[in-house]
Amino acid sequence: LAGVLDMSVQSFDAQHIRQHSEVVFCALPHGASAARVAELYDDKLCILDLSADFRLPAELYAQWYAEHPCPELIAHAVYGLVELSRERLATAKLIAVPGCYPTASILALAPLLQAGCLKSTGRIIIDAKSGVSGAGRELSLATQFGEIAEGMHAYKVGGVHRHIGEIEHALNQLSEQAVHISFTPHLVPMVRGMLVNAYVELDEGGQEPTELARAMYRDSPCVHVLEPGSCPDTRAVRAANRALLSYAQDPRTGICLAQAAIDNLTKGASGQAIQCLNLRLGLDEMCGLDSAPLWP
Amino acid sequence: LAGVLDMSVQSFDAQHIRQHSEVVFCALPHGASAARVAELYDDKLCILDLSADFRLPAELYAQWYAEHPCPELIAHAVYGLVELSRERLATAKLIAVPGCYPTASILALAPLLQAGCLKSTGRIIIDAKSGVSGAGRELSLATQFGEIAEGMHAYKVGGVHRHIGEIEHALNQLSEQAVHISFTPHLVPMVRGMLVNAYVELDEGGQEPTELARAMYRDSPCVHVLEPGSCPDTRAVRAANRALLSYAQDPRTGICLAQAAIDNLTKGASGQAIQCLNLRLGLDEMCGLDSAPLWP
Amino acid sequence: LAGVLDMSVQSFDAQHIRQHSEVVFCALPHGASAARVAELYDDKLCILDLSADFRLPAELYAQWYAEHPCPELIAHAVYGLVELSRERLATAKLIAVPGCYPTASILALAPLLQAGCLKSTGRIIIDAKSGVSGAGRELSLATQFGEIAEGMHAYKVGGVHRHIGEIEHALNQLSEQAVHISFTPHLVPMVRGMLVNAYVELDEGGQEPTELARAMYRDSPCVHVLEPGSCPDTRAVRAANRALLSYAQDPRTGICLAQAAIDNLTKGASGQAIQCLNLRLGLDEMCGLDSAPLWP
Amino acid sequence: LAGVLDMSVQSFDAQHIRQHSEVVFCALPHGASAARVAELYDDKLCILDLSADFRLPAELYAQWYAEHPCPELIAHAVYGLVELSRERLATAKLIAVPGCYPTASILALAPLLQAGCLKSTGRIIIDAKSGVSGAGRELSLATQFGEIAEGMHAYKVGGVHRHIGEIEHALNQLSEQAVHISFTPHLVPMVRGMLVNAYVELDEGGQEPTELARAMYRDSPCVHVLEPGSCPDTRAVRAANRALLSYAQDPRTGICLAQAAIDNLTKGASGQAIQCLNLRLGLDEMCGLDSAPLWP
Repeated sequence: LAGVLDMSVQSFDAQHIRQHSEVVFCALPHGASAARVAELYDDKLCILDLSADFRLPAELYAQWYAEHPCPELIAHAVYGLVELSRERLATAKLIAVPGCYPTASILALAPLLQAGCLKSTGRIIIDAKSGVSGAGRELSLATQFGEIAEGMHAYKVGGVHRHIGEIEHALNQLSEQAVHISFTPHLVPMVRGMLVNAYVELDEGGQEPTELARAMYRDSPCVHVLEPGSCPDTRAVRAANRALLSYAQDPRTGICLAQAAIDNLTKGASGQAIQCLNLRLGLDEMCGLDSAPLWP
Repeated sequence: LAGVLDMSVQSFDAQHIRQHSEVVFCALPHGASAARVAELYDDKLCILDLSADFRLPAELYAQWYAEHPCPELIAHAVYGLVELSRERLATAKLIAVPGCYPTASILALAPLLQAGCLKSTGRIIIDAKSGVSGAGRELSLATQFGEIAEGMHAYKVGGVHRHIGEIEHALNQLSEQAVHISFTPHLVPMVRGMLVNAYVELDEGGQEPTELARAMYRDSPCVHVLEPGSCPDTRAVRAANRALLSYAQDPRTGICLAQAAIDNLTKGASGQAIQCLNLRLGLDEMCGLDSAPLWP
Repeated sequence: LAGVLDMSVQSFDAQHIRQHSEVVFCALPHGASAARVAELYDDKLCILDLSADFRLPAELYAQWYAEHPCPELIAHAVYGLVELSRERLATAKLIAVPGCYPTASILALAPLLQAGCLKSTGRIIIDAKSGVSGAGRELSLATQFGEIAEGMHAYKVGGVHRHIGEIEHALNQLSEQAVHISFTPHLVPMVRGMLVNAYVELDEGGQEPTELARAMYRDSPCVHVLEPGSCPDTRAVRAANRALLSYAQDPRTGICLAQAAIDNLTKGASGQAIQCLNLRLGLDEMCGLDSAPLWP
Repeated sequence: LAGVLDMSVQSFDAQHIRQHSEVVFCALPHGASAARVAELYDDKLCILDLSADFRLPAELYAQWYAEHPCPELIAHAVYGLVELSRERLATAKLIAVPGCYPTASILALAPLLQAGCLKSTGRIIIDAKSGVSGAGRELSLATQFGEIAEGMHAYKVGGVHRHIGEIEHALNQLSEQAVHISFTPHLVPMVRGMLVNAYVELDEGGQEPTELARAMYRDSPCVHVLEPGSCPDTRAVRAANRALLSYAQDPRTGICLAQAAIDNLTKGASGQAIQCLNLRLGLDEMCGLDSAPLWP
């Protein structure tokens, strides 16, 4: 970024930040983040936290992560999936910005849950594929070029990925029907991009999923619902704050495939945090986020 | 292959082939292949057909492809998924060699079907990912480097991929329970490699899937069943005639994930055709196929 | 670009364009472009031509391409390498926008030529590496994913690449010393990005190349000259209208390596055409072009 | 390699190795390797060392690496570039196996040097491109997938790469003419593969480079000399113990481009060490190394 953006790195000083800042983005690992947010939290600051620390109720947090260090703060947090929380975001003081897997999964499924059209088992199978930047920049043998190029694999199978709790919790807010998520993440040899496939059984005679989604996201500038049976490509959202959704019904089996393609960074936590802030400041939701996807 | 293998290309001449050959590999598109095989078929030749033309009964072929041009030949064909047909392959005169999607899907699911442990719905969700060489070498905008690198997408969603019929048919031979496949293929930015995820519900109290698979493939040198919950990487089978299987049970949802990783070319039709021929000729099954996977 | 930019495609109608347009971008193949430009050219339009048709004098064009169809127009064209032609671009009616190889090569070498510090042989060896999008989007076996991934190769070796004439011509404008270019292009398995290495011998006792370049590009917002001996990465300019230059002197051999990294599309013809237009319209040179490089 | 090769890792025990082994491959970092070799060296063992420790005379080793810990051993070492040392390898007790950059560079240039046809300056410009596995498997931010994919860059410019000394030394053995190498290595976004371009000026009236190379490598089964002006692709040697050479003369500038493509691992140190051992044991030179390149 030489010549493009010159910012200096400073040590964390809660008092200094509270005196000189209006907005704080906190991008620390879960656990570490809650402690810093607790130091900063007051009536004037707007804090956007990109960790998992304020995305779950305390008891779910304890189940999937650890005992929460400051559970009393959780009630103040608004879940920053813009398309579900616009009103609450407008006045939020603490915003828990979700990452890529929950964002893509929830955007694809929310229209179906909200319309209450899942079969009564409430069982959802999610097969999710992520570019390697989803793993962060931490040094690891598993993300060396020579271990990633020309191959792919799943990881954390068997119901242990922590985002399961977050996705289930968010979906359970949307309907009276309890859902159970089987979630399988994969690493794919590309730097950016996420494709989430959710397989559900729908009650017969309900509304078309595509219509439900178009209705729900009518006023959401960064969500585009494709024609039924089309296939979103992650390249069509690369480096863009944008989600492509599509729904395909398999008449042979009755299974509905709900797909979401996002850029795992831009409509993952990073771009989404800006989108949250825009709402909080009363700006246009897409302010600074309206660049077209990078193609090719 | 200059300096490695020097073969000349000759026009097709059925009489010449029948007089001078013992074995014929036929790698033509479906439809075109059946006609050539009909010309060649006699008592002495061993024909290995890599097209779809002899993999399905005539009525299923008509449903997924077209009216079959020579249905009387189908009865002579043996389905060349070695691990399921060793005995019949030893005397086959016409072998219908399956490609990558059916091979990976059937290998992963066969132990569960054979043991009869699927829930009674018989519904199986298959989310399959293929390297780009699975699309063949035909010139296409969709497989240009600039359209594939740094992105991924599904294709042929909604129950229309022709391999659905083949996979269902093969699985239905293995058990009295009728199965219904929901199948979603994807193109992933790698040249080789295939990962198939099959999601099934199993009856409670049955045997461990990993044990079932190890028992079934005990004498299959190219199938390796990993520890429960592990994740096969396509890189571990790259350029090898090898399948890695693994099974992961999700205790939260009761869903069992069966995974298979193969090289879509080598344990797809090409290598598998050699494996079939080895059996047919009474050679060691892995003759010429025992090179280690390419790593890195 | 659905939802981002909606433009309709219309047939070419020279009269209609002249009546309703102020600016025309012409992105046709060489040869085809000259004919269209000749139809459009008048006193009012500003035409930016991205082909090779107006980048060379007629005799050089004949040598490297073909007889020029409208040589009288060439005199009106300004070569659109902004950093060398700002003043002339401000009033140009026909701008011949150069592509990626000449842009990177000339930017790296111009400071050395202008200062007259090349050894008297005038011989320059250019080893250039391009991402695959440099080959355009035309369907070709050579640019299929399966032919490009995991490999690289040179092409058009032996002094036959047409950009040699263009690079030599532009450099010969900058100094009295005649230069001779040995040029070797390569295709590298990445979609975007270009790295040009120019090897030259400099007269002893001259000024530091890095200082010469910094002086020459002092007022060029999209050219950044790195510290001596550093190595520009094409990723640091990806999707940006930006050139990174660096110079490394090898004390053992007296060879100076001049490197330029650009995005072959953005500071290739496409972005550069916008940069030219900005100058022509009296706008800020980087208007619409100031986005940071895409990282990662 | 589970199920393919089962070997156990043991601690280094020089006495045990000397008693129970006939051949030792030593693949330690330079410096570390010399000490182990010194412990092992005796009249019976054949030691193949893949480090740089025995590739250079002591004074050059000191210049490019460090003071040599056991200079008296260097005289016993044979440089393991098979194509140059077949006779000496047949009886060698210590073989210093060269890596990828020297192998490719020397193979391409040796025919020209041996024929004494370089211009008297003796200056050679080498622009070399390597796949990422050339950097080894050590954990490094620079070789993470997210830092390598979709980009390329040079490194160690300005005459500091240690292989310069080795290449110059080997070439200087071949002719009375002293050569000076300007060497620029690059990292390219592919796992395997190396392409070396050497730019030289040849005396006029000499023999065709292609003919010289074909004569020199007539009996070398793993070297193939392509037609003049053709462009070797690293994919054509992937995973193979094979070198493709080609020569292109630029009539405009008099520059001759000598290219070599190898697999940086297989005809880098690893495969080449086997090739050396084959010669040492009187086996066919290509024993165990004759698999075709991996395509695609």
